[in-house]
Amino acid sequence: MGYGLLKGKTGIIFGALDHKSIAWKVAERCVEEGAHIVLTNAPVALRMGEINELATKLKSEIIPADATSLEDLEHLISKSMEIFGGKIDFMLHSIGMSVNVRKKKEYTDLNYEWMKTTFDISAISFHKLMQTAMKLDAMNQSGSILALTYIAAQRTFPDYSEMAESKALLESFARSFGYHWAKKAGVRVNTISQSPTVTTAGSGVKGFSDFFGYADKMSPLGNASSDACADYCVAMFSDLTKYVTMQNLFHDGGFSSMGMAPEVLD
Amino acid sequence: MGYGLLKGKTGIIFGALDHKSIAWKVAERCVEEGAHIVLTNAPVALRMGEINELATKLKSEIIPADATSLEDLEHLISKSMEIFGGKIDFMLHSIGMSVNVRKKKEYTDLNYEWMKTTFDISAISFHKLMQTAMKLDAMNQSGSILALTYIAAQRTFPDYSEMAESKALLESFARSFGYHWAKKAGVRVNTISQSPTVTTAGSGVKGFSDFFGYADKMSPLGNASSDACADYCVAMFSDLTKYVTMQNLFHDGGFSSMGMAPEVLD
Amino acid sequence: MGYGLLKGKTGIIFGALDHKSIAWKVAERCVEEGAHIVLTNAPVALRMGEINELATKLKSEIIPADATSLEDLEHLISKSMEIFGGKIDFMLHSIGMSVNVRKKKEYTDLNYEWMKTTFDISAISFHKLMQTAMKLDAMNQSGSILALTYIAAQRTFPDYSEMAESKALLESFARSFGYHWAKKAGVRVNTISQSPTVTTAGSGVKGFSDFFGYADKMSPLGNASSDACADYCVAMFSDLTKYVTMQNLFHDGGFSSMGMAPEVLD
Amino acid sequence: MGYGLLKGKTGIIFGALDHKSIAWKVAERCVEEGAHIVLTNAPVALRMGEINELATKLKSEIIPADATSLEDLEHLISKSMEIFGGKIDFMLHSIGMSVNVRKKKEYTDLNYEWMKTTFDISAISFHKLMQTAMKLDAMNQSGSILALTYIAAQRTFPDYSEMAESKALLESFARSFGYHWAKKAGVRVNTISQSPTVTTAGSGVKGFSDFFGYADKMSPLGNASSDACADYCVAMFSDLTKYVTMQNLFHDGGFSSMGMAPEVLD
Repeated sequence: MGYGLLKGKTGIIFGALDHKSIAWKVAERCVEEGAHIVLTNAPVALRMGEINELATKLKSEIIPADATSLEDLEHLISKSMEIFGGKIDFMLHSIGMSVNVRKKKEYTDLNYEWMKTTFDISAISFHKLMQTAMKLDAMNQSGSILALTYIAAQRTFPDYSEMAESKALLESFARSFGYHWAKKAGVRVNTISQSPTVTTAGSGVKGFSDFFGYADKMSPLGNASSDACADYCVAMFSDLTKYVTMQNLFHDGGFSSMGMAPEVLD
Repeated sequence: MGYGLLKGKTGIIFGALDHKSIAWKVAERCVEEGAHIVLTNAPVALRMGEINELATKLKSEIIPADATSLEDLEHLISKSMEIFGGKIDFMLHSIGMSVNVRKKKEYTDLNYEWMKTTFDISAISFHKLMQTAMKLDAMNQSGSILALTYIAAQRTFPDYSEMAESKALLESFARSFGYHWAKKAGVRVNTISQSPTVTTAGSGVKGFSDFFGYADKMSPLGNASSDACADYCVAMFSDLTKYVTMQNLFHDGGFSSMGMAPEVLD
Repeated sequence: MGYGLLKGKTGIIFGALDHKSIAWKVAERCVEEGAHIVLTNAPVALRMGEINELATKLKSEIIPADATSLEDLEHLISKSMEIFGGKIDFMLHSIGMSVNVRKKKEYTDLNYEWMKTTFDISAISFHKLMQTAMKLDAMNQSGSILALTYIAAQRTFPDYSEMAESKALLESFARSFGYHWAKKAGVRVNTISQSPTVTTAGSGVKGFSDFFGYADKMSPLGNASSDACADYCVAMFSDLTKYVTMQNLFHDGGFSSMGMAPEVLD
Repeated sequence: MGYGLLKGKTGIIFGALDHKSIAWKVAERCVEEGAHIVLTNAPVALRMGEINELATKLKSEIIPADATSLEDLEHLISKSMEIFGGKIDFMLHSIGMSVNVRKKKEYTDLNYEWMKTTFDISAISFHKLMQTAMKLDAMNQSGSILALTYIAAQRTFPDYSEMAESKALLESFARSFGYHWAKKAGVRVNTISQSPTVTTAGSGVKGFSDFFGYADKMSPLGNASSDACADYCVAMFSDLTKYVTMQNLFHDGGFSSMGMAPEVLD
């Protein structure tokens, strides 16, 4: 019972792991709005199984792809175009993982091999995705590409560690490639900078619940939920936002514009 | 034949002068999406007459209001609530005028009385509108307030003169009042920073066509049209963007994120 | 016992009220660095008397001037050039006062006449100063003009009220006029966005001590003192920073780049 | 015949290749201001030889170091402390190189192995430097760490390619590590975002002279020279700027604050 905003549109959604994932909600909302989608995630994530449930419910296919592998991305995109019987209208990149954070390495004692893996998974995969799609001429005119990011790209949250740099990198790729996609096919590329969200991935960060609570108090509207984020993604995939590109869009209940909230002091 | 995004919602639209006005397009799109709206403009602007044509077409009422007058604003809001039979869901502030620019005073030789009039009309009116609406408890829960602005608030365009300061002021009011509206009723307040647009007002700025052309080349998607802006306003008034607040949102084809476009050099 | 950074330079310092004032420290440091300065403040502020002590110590003259009065500014600048026997190298604008804050009016219930007075004193005075100086061709080549501001221009601190808008306006004037001063005489115009500082003026703001403490914890280096600010002003007046212009420079111990400090949570 | 701003201070300068290098000028100015410095560069760069001339002139030692090698960095820092007979007060990171740009790969056809090398040399080296210095407890209280960057980190310059991402990464490292250095020893970490500069490295970028000319016209003060940049670095290493940290400081003649310059249109 959506609005029909994505009627006839096709899209690829990365990163739906379980029902807490933002990408899970986005997938549901896109289908509700009339889109035909393909779900994808890393083979290891798929093995956990919940995504099959989602695919069944949404009548969508799942194509496994390691987002750091050019071969996998090429297969994903080609196969998706086959399934859709045409090009792609939108893509969501919702992928992020820090090896150093997982292994509890401090920011002042990082392992640089792990850092490279972190950047590859969390940010360079976004360039690879866009480069592969461009080589395959896979996007429809006026399409929309989104990636999810976090305000740590602009401001320091010490526990977020090297994910700050991953997100800075991701947002820069959006701006840079946004120019080329605009010229090629009028495609927009943007990032949505989302409130801290209780997901299986997000909760892994040290001190997550403290910083969730702090952000919630600091945000005049409170933290934005994953459901609200899915709504915003729909707006950004729809034809209502065709001239918004190369932007980082805060979806955070106002957090990014607060200097000090009285609520935090009390 | 819209999507029904604003079905059952009520709104006030400032600034529709003639069919070139952004506010004119926004009014049309809001009604197309199911909204019930009230049109308003300064009595002197209304006298020019074209807006009656719009009101008839949209089956909307026109309530004249000088946006610098607290009495007029109070009357406008009270009367609108009467017409709607309830509170208001959204408001668009699309008002701007520089006396010094009109009178061709250079930025280094401004008349300060005129500057005050400029700020009053172009920016303080936005605070007055929000303060009056708050005193009258006029906004529905999760409503949306928008004002149109320009990137001169962040970067210098010498010919834009004191309008740069007007827009900086306007955007600051959006952030500051956004906090209070969020706390009061979960209402969002944002500004949309639009590409230069060929309107009767906009074209008055010195060197407008040069800078329209420059911006068009500099923007990877080209300048955003007023039709596209109306679409974006609809998205921001709809329930898809409930957690976006206190933001300045660039709707500019990518202009704001460009450092140098090869297209400009050629 | 300074470095001689301002040897042979001449400057006008606004806003030294008493020994807690940032401008007081700046005046001392400028003289220590070899500058010849003129002190100025509103007649009402001068009547409080402490500034005579400073003038005596620094062997500087005091020229009273209401910064909102074009006549007073013209007199100040002409008289200063007479005293200096030539043009001016630097000016510091350190003026700010909110009538609504003083009168304890809430941000959602502002008096608009008072708001105009606030803007006139806190921001428009900066434009008036620059416009008057330009008409009198009063600045030396490669001179430097500074105004003190606060991060409330970018982010919301509810208790700061309409001073947020005053600072947004002030920073916009710096950018806009910076273009014209650069073209006219290679003069730089910048704002320094200072940590909350315990001054007679600053402490008047509601909840000041809470927000001073919060900012201190949030800033990795702690709040910057007025002594440190004076050092930074000297750097910005010196020949070491001739190509920095139209910038808002945070002098805040890192506050502006923090998203969340663990120190605040504890 | 400097001011004595760095009297008694010790520092390491990366990146002096030849007399056109910004780092070369910074080294000269630091010594002129009384600092004792160590010069370093990659072995391959040193082999070109001009740096010996600089070292002789400045009575400085050269310690070769590949900035991507933790062993080299550890040796560099330990050896420097030996030479200085104590800890270090300041460091300049002026290193950048894009393999894909050198090999003329388009941004939409990047080689990802080369990208990783680019990031390692141009950005991760900065984290490695700071991490190594912290492990060796090598910085004096209130020291200052700087890296040179470019506005492509915020805005798109298509020919700058993956260097945009390198600079975004570099600036993020400055913010993130700035927090830890502040807490550890009151050390500041900042980046200076410099105008395009005619250096042996800079000139390699495609279309460099066009974009140098464009930036020069767009900047109200014109492009900042490497001499001016050296002055600014001295100010940032000195005790005048002890509370400026985690900032990206534009040293660009006003470029970053311009929206459109009439000079570009003519």
